Amino acid sequence: MFNKITIIGLGLIGSSIARAIKKNHLCKNLVAHDKSKRVLKKILKLKITNHIEPNLKKSVQDSDLVIICTPLGTYKNIVSVIKNYLKNTCILTDVGSAKIFVTNTVNKLINKNTIWIPAHPVAGTEQSGPEAGFADLFKNRWCIITPINKKNPNSLKKLNNFWKKIGSKVQYMTAEHHDKVMAITSHIPHLIAYNIVGTAANLEKDTKSEVIKYSASGFRDFTRIASSDPTMWRDIALNNRKQILHMLEKFNLDLSNLKSAIIKKDANKLFKLFSKTRKIRQAIVKAGQDINSPNFGRKN
Amino acid sequence: MFNKITIIGLGLIGSSIARAIKKNHLCKNLVAHDKSKRVLKKILKLKITNHIEPNLKKSVQDSDLVIICTPLGTYKNIVSVIKNYLKNTCILTDVGSAKIFVTNTVNKLINKNTIWIPAHPVAGTEQSGPEAGFADLFKNRWCIITPINKKNPNSLKKLNNFWKKIGSKVQYMTAEHHDKVMAITSHIPHLIAYNIVGTAANLEKDTKSEVIKYSASGFRDFTRIASSDPTMWRDIALNNRKQILHMLEKFNLDLSNLKSAIIKKDANKLFKLFSKTRKIRQAIVKAGQDINSPNFGRKN
Repeated sequence: MFNKITIIGLGLIGSSIARAIKKNHLCKNLVAHDKSKRVLKKILKLKITNHIEPNLKKSVQDSDLVIICTPLGTYKNIVSVIKNYLKNTCILTDVGSAKIFVTNTVNKLINKNTIWIPAHPVAGTEQSGPEAGFADLFKNRWCIITPINKKNPNSLKKLNNFWKKIGSKVQYMTAEHHDKVMAITSHIPHLIAYNIVGTAANLEKDTKSEVIKYSASGFRDFTRIASSDPTMWRDIALNNRKQILHMLEKFNLDLSNLKSAIIKKDANKLFKLFSKTRKIRQAIVKAGQDINSPNFGRKN
Repeated sequence: MFNKITIIGLGLIGSSIARAIKKNHLCKNLVAHDKSKRVLKKILKLKITNHIEPNLKKSVQDSDLVIICTPLGTYKNIVSVIKNYLKNTCILTDVGSAKIFVTNTVNKLINKNTIWIPAHPVAGTEQSGPEAGFADLFKNRWCIITPINKKNPNSLKKLNNFWKKIGSKVQYMTAEHHDKVMAITSHIPHLIAYNIVGTAANLEKDTKSEVIKYSASGFRDFTRIASSDPTMWRDIALNNRKQILHMLEKFNLDLSNLKSAIIKKDANKLFKLFSKTRKIRQAIVKAGQDINSPNFGRKN
């Protein structure tokens, strides 16, 4: 499909893409670049790519597809370094979670003729690093592509096919719409989970140990999400600020409303609030986006 | 162990206790009472108990152990009806999640000599009804007993043994301490999950359908908890108000703090907030209270 593919950043996502490329034979020459020597050593040991290239410029030379899989805060430096080393027909893409920021940042830096197509595979786990990746991470998940212009329909088609071959379903949307949808489905859930686990972490020492002991009563679900990569989430919080703050406003308004129902002992209102949410769960299970086993089928 | 046991309320918890009693041969005569004819029919069909008894008074007569497994809002009526029909040696217990409320409510109603020992098995799933129960629900989970006085050490020992035979670990604590710990480990997580899923439910129709589509990015975890039984959670919100409002205050303070870090683009603060929570996850996994597989080991 491609002759040479370069993956920049071999964490959970980057290393999973690499594994999926290898599994599905999507290129002849797969090259890994990471600023961490430990990560590159690991990649070499795991035989995930054909080559590792510690020099960023060299890693993208002659590539047909360059995929940036690093935290949002690194984009500016990376694109500044590689922009003059991409060949004309190369597709530059990424996997970042805040598309307005990513689009604006990269647009400002790249040369006029660079084929740049932002993308975001909506998949992941709470674990991070090259060891945590696996080839099927993107199977049956959505990959959102936010095309900037229609100058390169063939390249867009190629990227679309690439994600489909990896097992994903592909959806096009604008960066603005993407950021709004992700704010409620991903960013706010993560921030709220970090916040509630943080509240527990701030409790006195004896209560804290009991939080761990009795966590199966609900709390443990939040700790899974709140153990996601902190650098990645710092950068998302910083770079989808507008939509995050907007959704947080709605969340806070609803929470005041819930709080006042508790204070007023408004049984009817509480029952209504706690009833309407079941339908959304049922719709998610029906859409094949979660399993129906109690406690996610956990054996513990 | 007991001659006759009566379970009042055969939902997820009550029917699971019944199944566990049968599996572990803990009594000769297991009787089910539920105000719903549909539930009693189901129990009969599933052969979970020896008898069903639609008359509440009759159901507790000659019982050695009566377990109330109904929402908190029903306690007053139930205890008023049964209080004069319990034999002297009978142990009256429950499974409710708000121990100060439960203790006060029942204390006011029962006769002076009634042996009443409040308890709370910290276990459950998001599903409800007699079909959702299973015998191993309490295995390796904690059962918290909040004894009121030391008048009946033998009865306390008996109840302790009962829960151990069902597979639970037993912990004694005061009702006050129980309500504080449950507020942060169970009640606030549930209320926050209901709230965030509620916020999504209030969005415009097109965004709502996308919330379902892209829910694997974090949101779906919250919908599991937010599909728990609304009657049960209405009653908990109404009856552990003080501790819930106190913890909600802490949560809100932390959330304002997080929000202001986002507004001020305080990268260091955000990184710190998102880092300290990982340790709690690790401690929970180490304590055997959750599994370590990514995404809870879900196959979807």
